[in-house]
Amino acid sequence: MKKLLTDPLLLVGSPAAVPDIRYAAGFNAPDAVVCLCIGNEIHLVVSALEYGRARGETCGVILHTPDSLHLESAKRRDPVAWTVALLKRMHVRRVRVPWDFPAGITLKLNAGGIRIEVIEGPAFPERAVKTRTEIECIRESQRAAVKAMKAACARLRAASVSSKGLLREGRRVLTSEELQLFIDRVLLESGCSADSTIAACGKQSADPHERGSGPLRAGAPVVIDIFPQHRGHGYFGDLTRTVVKGKPSPKVAAMYRAVKAAQEAALGSIRAGVRACEVHAAVHETFVRHGFQTGLIGGWPQGFIHGTGHGVGLAIHEAPSVSTAENILKAGNVITVEPGLYYRDTGGVRIEDTVVVTRTGWEYLCPFRKAIAP
Amino acid sequence: MKKLLTDPLLLVGSPAAVPDIRYAAGFNAPDAVVCLCIGNEIHLVVSALEYGRARGETCGVILHTPDSLHLESAKRRDPVAWTVALLKRMHVRRVRVPWDFPAGITLKLNAGGIRIEVIEGPAFPERAVKTRTEIECIRESQRAAVKAMKAACARLRAASVSSKGLLREGRRVLTSEELQLFIDRVLLESGCSADSTIAACGKQSADPHERGSGPLRAGAPVVIDIFPQHRGHGYFGDLTRTVVKGKPSPKVAAMYRAVKAAQEAALGSIRAGVRACEVHAAVHETFVRHGFQTGLIGGWPQGFIHGTGHGVGLAIHEAPSVSTAENILKAGNVITVEPGLYYRDTGGVRIEDTVVVTRTGWEYLCPFRKAIAP
Repeated sequence: MKKLLTDPLLLVGSPAAVPDIRYAAGFNAPDAVVCLCIGNEIHLVVSALEYGRARGETCGVILHTPDSLHLESAKRRDPVAWTVALLKRMHVRRVRVPWDFPAGITLKLNAGGIRIEVIEGPAFPERAVKTRTEIECIRESQRAAVKAMKAACARLRAASVSSKGLLREGRRVLTSEELQLFIDRVLLESGCSADSTIAACGKQSADPHERGSGPLRAGAPVVIDIFPQHRGHGYFGDLTRTVVKGKPSPKVAAMYRAVKAAQEAALGSIRAGVRACEVHAAVHETFVRHGFQTGLIGGWPQGFIHGTGHGVGLAIHEAPSVSTAENILKAGNVITVEPGLYYRDTGGVRIEDTVVVTRTGWEYLCPFRKAIAP
Repeated sequence: MKKLLTDPLLLVGSPAAVPDIRYAAGFNAPDAVVCLCIGNEIHLVVSALEYGRARGETCGVILHTPDSLHLESAKRRDPVAWTVALLKRMHVRRVRVPWDFPAGITLKLNAGGIRIEVIEGPAFPERAVKTRTEIECIRESQRAAVKAMKAACARLRAASVSSKGLLREGRRVLTSEELQLFIDRVLLESGCSADSTIAACGKQSADPHERGSGPLRAGAPVVIDIFPQHRGHGYFGDLTRTVVKGKPSPKVAAMYRAVKAAQEAALGSIRAGVRACEVHAAVHETFVRHGFQTGLIGGWPQGFIHGTGHGVGLAIHEAPSVSTAENILKAGNVITVEPGLYYRDTGGVRIEDTVVVTRTGWEYLCPFRKAIAP
């Protein structure tokens, strides 16, 4: 039997909103649950309503309900009461909680004599290193993203260009909104959801989080960022391509070459044991070499204004970060590699793939061609 | 000028995950922001990346960025540092925070000499009383739900029944999953998302949160619960119907009559000034009168095993609850009215509408017929 080296870990919340709970218990639900990890044991308190489903969907988890904890009826709907009762049942007087644990619950537990330690870092550092099963789940979502990207590119290829330079399908102008909806429909057919698919054209794309609206135009960059979450297992994928229908301006073409080269430089530096900031630095150096500046320009942050990448799993942004920090990449990390350049007078160019870090390098979760023509 | 009666309210988190922030600032984003409400002023700290979008999408909100707060570059990505800098800038030394405020941030603020009061109830009690604009937003989502329900019922009507009692379309068996996907597709076309649409048949429907899987069958109840969130403004709708293709069993038919009568009784008792528990009691009494028992039966909670309703807004479950508590309904509350009966040997029947409470009664956000035949 393993010796208990640390205090039990307590998590309270909706598994749908707190990926750590979904990770620990392998159970998803919209409403609050209580999860207590004691050594290798996972205890989960669910409402009577959720019990049947939890019994069917979890494996190796010890289930409790307000009834089994003998709670009086006034407390049956209160996860704080569930928590108190579970800790009492398990003779636990000290717990660790994650940094985003609800402050109101810590107060009540403190008042009940429970000692609480708030963890500084992630509750499950091991979440950053994916198992084979997890990698297959992310691959499934990444495949859906590639399928949707292919379909979106095909639609852009097939579109005609009006005399005013707008993309058209027959008599209708093709818009960002229509392309987003189309992508989300393809994802839905593949068992995935996506709430904030980006299809931003021209100057709109200079803001990396702008979803895009209005007519798509020829000659301007269209940044398409697709990050589906699988509706069953909950793992994300993440993929971005930037395409130009017709002839790109010399500046956009140069930005595209720089971003593609920067991604190659980043990928070239990725393997287990490398510091993430070295990967990020490789991107920065490539942009400098290609003559692209980063910094406040006219009062706005422009150039390469975000990190090189982030971990992907049950959350779309999770550890490890690939940015300025010194963290070391490990085999099994699943990360995005997404250099980008953003200038307010021109727009943005971003190329993003999701890869798994290996001992000797990395592998695409699902490859897709990189070309400025859709 | 209004006198400041309470300490400033501090919210930190992703507006997509913390509806209070979206409510206060009128801004949605996947990443963390800091929101400080001082009297009538709303201050919002967003990353440089989000600034342009925040400037375009908010109205009357005072925007800050890590740059405008003069944060050194190591702290530019840390919302805790944003919080400390904003409180200093605003000379705020005492704040109120909601009960689910991250415990790790309260520790750091405490260490910096900030006094924190954790609020027991909701941060914005006024969120439970909807403005006209909010009601129109919820109506839009409810209309999408009705449209999807109509389409689902039409599909069930058109289906044939195999010799084994399975629903068929041509040679294909119609499944829960296919119906869920179809509903979500209709919602997507109406600008809404839905992640957990329920289409559960027969004994599966005895669990109110079971989404349903496998073939749909004739003669068995199909519980269809649709709760779309609008992808633009973020308000939800919520609608449930239970239908039986072909002839329902006498027990299901009796359950249906009881649930319909219970909803009528609940609706008949709703108006501003009424205690929510009276509405809930009207449902209970109707079930008793119709001879349906509630309680542990064979070790499982069965009968009427959930509340009569909940508030609907930027969250699918929000105040006011319509259950056993004594809270008073107010004009402008938007609530679901969703009595249901659940028996493990038979399945479930639930009928749910979303209504706005008025001075003299209530109004449907969007009506839809109630009949056991699809």
